[in-house]
Amino acid sequence: MNYVHLVAVIAIFQFFYFGIMVGRARGQYGVAAPATSGHEMFERAYRVQMNTLEQLVCFLPALLLAGVYWPNSVIAGVGVIYLVGRFIYATAYMKDPAKRGPGFALSILPTFGLLGATGVGVFMG
Amino acid sequence: MNYVHLVAVIAIFQFFYFGIMVGRARGQYGVAAPATSGHEMFERAYRVQMNTLEQLVCFLPALLLAGVYWPNSVIAGVGVIYLVGRFIYATAYMKDPAKRGPGFALSILPTFGLLGATGVGVFMG
Amino acid sequence: MNYVHLVAVIAIFQFFYFGIMVGRARGQYGVAAPATSGHEMFERAYRVQMNTLEQLVCFLPALLLAGVYWPNSVIAGVGVIYLVGRFIYATAYMKDPAKRGPGFALSILPTFGLLGATGVGVFMG
Repeated sequence: MNYVHLVAVIAIFQFFYFGIMVGRARGQYGVAAPATSGHEMFERAYRVQMNTLEQLVCFLPALLLAGVYWPNSVIAGVGVIYLVGRFIYATAYMKDPAKRGPGFALSILPTFGLLGATGVGVFMG
Repeated sequence: MNYVHLVAVIAIFQFFYFGIMVGRARGQYGVAAPATSGHEMFERAYRVQMNTLEQLVCFLPALLLAGVYWPNSVIAGVGVIYLVGRFIYATAYMKDPAKRGPGFALSILPTFGLLGATGVGVFMG
Repeated sequence: MNYVHLVAVIAIFQFFYFGIMVGRARGQYGVAAPATSGHEMFERAYRVQMNTLEQLVCFLPALLLAGVYWPNSVIAGVGVIYLVGRFIYATAYMKDPAKRGPGFALSILPTFGLLGATGVGVFMG
């Protein structure tokens, strides 16, 4: 079974979930589109989504490329760390933006690892 | 012929087109970079681009992964619904942000379908 | 050696680098999260990152898809132009947003070329 593809699918659904949180925050805090500011709590939800967008754009190709060179289950395992890290990031950011560090590290470091693994894989042929 | 790749190429060109609309709106409504607010119509064009960015990051991997498991022409057909949905979304948003719902649904549902199809494909091996 | 994958990895690291610049600018110009405005220099760094995000979402699939149809080294070479173009874009934008044109062209034109090459490749089968 291709666990890497499964992690990719879950990562995209996770991002959609953060997007739903933004839509909910629009209603809850009265920030009508196209505005993206106006209430601190809306802005937090929006930043969680935007930061996850930035991470996802890097994570997905890194995951799929690393999967070309390394065992599927190992790469998928690294991907799960990203998923957990993002969840921690989102929860912490909504409570207090200053505490977003650990979740951020837990989602960016797996991507760095996957990129490094891809680089090594490329050089090893 | 790989219709899935063709849909991917068209989806990227569509996104570039929305980016050109933002550039044009900068001049038209006097919103100089790096500002991303200042005129309602510019903000609408910018939100169309940003929302399409969010969608594209999910749609492209979903499209390509689903194409691994399912017939090329079927997956490409689902992708065409996304392309039409995004076009409707952009047109409606520029007229009235409150009317962005149908186009939004028509572009997010195909992606959900592609992700579901990928998930089923993974489990079926 | 898969040069295309190597260019993809470098492009993602380049984007992360622009993200680090935004984090640094937050501290330097006193723009605490979740705000994304408040100081011109922060906004420039943020726009460099966001514009690169927009470009990367298009460049990476275009690069990998073109690599399916055309020689690895040629496609990777086109990708290197993108990398240089983005570097010029970022440097110029931080100095003066009005001078972002040449670097922008040097990173968007390679992507157009890759998309065109993919399209031709699809039709040629």
